[in-house]
Amino acid sequence: MSTWVEQWDIFEFSTAGPTEGNPFVDVSFGAKFSQAGRELLVAGFYDGEGIYRVRFMPPAQGEWRFETHSNCNDLAGKAGTFTVVAPTGNNRGPVRVHNTFHFQYADGTPYKQIGTTAYAWTHQGTELEELTLTALRRAPFNKIRMCVFPKRYAFNANEPPLYAFAGTAPNKWDFTRFNPEFWRHQEKRISQLRDMGIEADLILFHPYDEGHWGFDRMDAASDERYLKYCIARFGAYRNVWWSMANEFDFMKTKQPADWDRYFEIVCENDPFDHLRSIHNGRLIYDHNKPWVTHASIQNGSAVEDFGRAILYRDVYRKPVVFDEVKYEGNIPQRWGDISAEEMVHRFWQGTIAGTYVGHGETYKHPNDVIWWARGGELHGKSPPRIAFLRKLLEEGPANGLEPIDKWQDVHTVGEAGAHYLVYFGKLTPTEWEFSLPRAGLNAGMRFRAEIIDTWNMSVEAVDGTFTIIEDATYRYRSESLRKIKLPGKKWMALRITRLEGDRVTFHEGKKIYGEG
Amino acid sequence: MSTWVEQWDIFEFSTAGPTEGNPFVDVSFGAKFSQAGRELLVAGFYDGEGIYRVRFMPPAQGEWRFETHSNCNDLAGKAGTFTVVAPTGNNRGPVRVHNTFHFQYADGTPYKQIGTTAYAWTHQGTELEELTLTALRRAPFNKIRMCVFPKRYAFNANEPPLYAFAGTAPNKWDFTRFNPEFWRHQEKRISQLRDMGIEADLILFHPYDEGHWGFDRMDAASDERYLKYCIARFGAYRNVWWSMANEFDFMKTKQPADWDRYFEIVCENDPFDHLRSIHNGRLIYDHNKPWVTHASIQNGSAVEDFGRAILYRDVYRKPVVFDEVKYEGNIPQRWGDISAEEMVHRFWQGTIAGTYVGHGETYKHPNDVIWWARGGELHGKSPPRIAFLRKLLEEGPANGLEPIDKWQDVHTVGEAGAHYLVYFGKLTPTEWEFSLPRAGLNAGMRFRAEIIDTWNMSVEAVDGTFTIIEDATYRYRSESLRKIKLPGKKWMALRITRLEGDRVTFHEGKKIYGEG
Repeated sequence: MSTWVEQWDIFEFSTAGPTEGNPFVDVSFGAKFSQAGRELLVAGFYDGEGIYRVRFMPPAQGEWRFETHSNCNDLAGKAGTFTVVAPTGNNRGPVRVHNTFHFQYADGTPYKQIGTTAYAWTHQGTELEELTLTALRRAPFNKIRMCVFPKRYAFNANEPPLYAFAGTAPNKWDFTRFNPEFWRHQEKRISQLRDMGIEADLILFHPYDEGHWGFDRMDAASDERYLKYCIARFGAYRNVWWSMANEFDFMKTKQPADWDRYFEIVCENDPFDHLRSIHNGRLIYDHNKPWVTHASIQNGSAVEDFGRAILYRDVYRKPVVFDEVKYEGNIPQRWGDISAEEMVHRFWQGTIAGTYVGHGETYKHPNDVIWWARGGELHGKSPPRIAFLRKLLEEGPANGLEPIDKWQDVHTVGEAGAHYLVYFGKLTPTEWEFSLPRAGLNAGMRFRAEIIDTWNMSVEAVDGTFTIIEDATYRYRSESLRKIKLPGKKWMALRITRLEGDRVTFHEGKKIYGEG
Repeated sequence: MSTWVEQWDIFEFSTAGPTEGNPFVDVSFGAKFSQAGRELLVAGFYDGEGIYRVRFMPPAQGEWRFETHSNCNDLAGKAGTFTVVAPTGNNRGPVRVHNTFHFQYADGTPYKQIGTTAYAWTHQGTELEELTLTALRRAPFNKIRMCVFPKRYAFNANEPPLYAFAGTAPNKWDFTRFNPEFWRHQEKRISQLRDMGIEADLILFHPYDEGHWGFDRMDAASDERYLKYCIARFGAYRNVWWSMANEFDFMKTKQPADWDRYFEIVCENDPFDHLRSIHNGRLIYDHNKPWVTHASIQNGSAVEDFGRAILYRDVYRKPVVFDEVKYEGNIPQRWGDISAEEMVHRFWQGTIAGTYVGHGETYKHPNDVIWWARGGELHGKSPPRIAFLRKLLEEGPANGLEPIDKWQDVHTVGEAGAHYLVYFGKLTPTEWEFSLPRAGLNAGMRFRAEIIDTWNMSVEAVDGTFTIIEDATYRYRSESLRKIKLPGKKWMALRITRLEGDRVTFHEGKKIYGEG
């Protein structure tokens, strides 16, 4: 009987081995996984109690073979074969960069990033963590930012139930010995997220420790050992992303070169090539460096008004994810006091710039159970509106929404000649003259329009169709100069789509006009 | 009698040598310039008619010695000494990067970049070029962007009087033989600009040729020979900046790696380390690369509204110069149809973001003599207002205007605790409550305020002084909550300066608050 596993699921091989000395550092263990034409070297790890494991996320279907290697004879040379079968259910593989600025799952399904943040939710104990999972099950989010290490910050000074290392809290640790129970707990949470279709953007380092536990100031060897252990344990989970840090520049004990080194360690040791990013405080990391797969940016201002977020796209030519844009809430800190309307607006601002946005929530709570740090329940009004946006994105172009006339028309995003979103934000127009940037257009094309209320979550079809003619130099208008009536309210948008019968000519019609 | 030259002026040594063969490629010639503790290797060049020259911009005062080297015995081993004396007049040395985001002359004098563009002004013949010089003499600009090669584009299809290479126009060139007359003419214009205090931002390549002359598609060896000849001839002019290209990405015959290579050639061959940049069309070069001294950006949109331009600063941590923000004019192209008000507004938008802006003018002209391409006369209304801004900048902090509360207060720039500009742009407030971001402030500090009309070029003092108290978490206000009356017009700004008597405590008071 053959062992089988789904593509992008986890094949795990475990075996007993030595327990004497410090197996975490004394014993090397790993395996070579091979299929015709390819070989992947995967590091294993010691899981305590004499058990050694190696985990593999098969990138392709068919027969695979593995053979272990080790500096310990008992662990070396163990071999076997297994069959990788087609994925089922919501298993679409890991998320990859697609079309320069966007994402898709490995199976080609578009992935429209709609993230949230609950930094320390896996360090809160069963009751609260289960509550968080329940909330996530009902929420629109397909990514969550979360810290491997516990967090100590305003509203969040509780000790976690488990620690990553052997030793005594708060700060007597043996950084050479991991605490398997801690890691198994993290894995359980990661796998629960995976099963719900949520990507786990694992934050590997963060400054919200300040020496209390000292996980923010381990020596270089401990940092490297920790990173490799993270990768060996978590790397086979298809929903894992690596975020090197939150607010990396606020970690005063790290030098700029440390971050480059961490990226290099991750690149060298992750055979599955998960997404890699690093999130800023006040100083932005150079996301042009080759190991960064997408720009992870904290800057609420960039999605506060038109024409801002797009500037980062040009600079990085990678997906831009605004992972922190301030939080919906009512705490005194200005990073946690924006309204639900403003949070939804920021998602839309990011969207019409061809970028992606992350959510967070900071409503005061009698026991300081605030979503942004500890998880729990969602109290805000933005999540349903974000769910509505997610639906619109999933109905939109598979290759992602692109600015149509960048640096010129800051309201319009889409796929030239086929699909457009036009967003008005805080403006309150009472009408809109049908007009589109000329890229991808030819006279005679026909479109339909829908009026979207981004706050009230409605889509209302506009009667009739719009046939376009060339007009001014840079745009096409409807031949009757027909206007669309709008309700004179904030938070309105339009969706404009090419009529089906016209679609055949789309690719021929596509043109790019080049001057800034 | 000793030879002497001013620091940062040009010491030139010339000597006769061989004329047979092709001296431009057959003969190597250069000199080592030395002073106690330092040596600079400087390439010379063949100037035709048997004359070889080497030019040196002395970086330090005192005695210097030189000795030539060559693959030709007649040219090698010639030596001499000269004395470098203190600079006089407006000789402040070359412009360097200062305080990360700003510039200063080598003598420490602040340099507030106020550029203009007249791409092909040195290829228009004496009459028009003299007219351009006259206009520049009256204008506020301290930098001009100009192409070494002639330009062929809309409104500008005239052949130049001189060409860089030996051969026959339009496209039968011997790229191995330079035309010294062409180069002497460029030098004359560069030196005239220098004497007027104007930096020459020399554009080394551009796409406005499209094979007509073929200067945009020379082979790699010719490109390199051309760059080295530029450096040997122009490098000793202290007012030279190297702009690798205009709209580099529109040059379809160049690959991305070509631009890196050009930068490397310039870095290796310019002993005087002039400023280096590259200007984009639609794709922005990676200005984080180490050889780029400042980001030269075309993107009018970035200075159209608040909160945009600053985003580039964070990304590059270098001076950001918006060298093309559309032009004041009335041609049909949308890059050349903005009003004078809008041009001035864009200068202010760049200024309050801690960046710098460049001017250009494109008013229709019966003979197509348009400033932006050919020079001539300035017809627009923005230059006097830009002169007014320049004066305000020169009265401002020597270290440059910095955002005080970046990503939060998009109206305010200055030096925390000392000097502020608050700009309102198209907003038309009738009053302003005295309030400043808290960085650098302590309760009890006293300020005075002036109302600035950026269009009408007036500065009006507000009666009395403002003593500040701590107020909300992130700002200080005047203790009487006093408001400043404003005229309810567009284009207004405020200048707020610390009272002299208070200044002593400034540096102690300076704090940085860190959260985004």
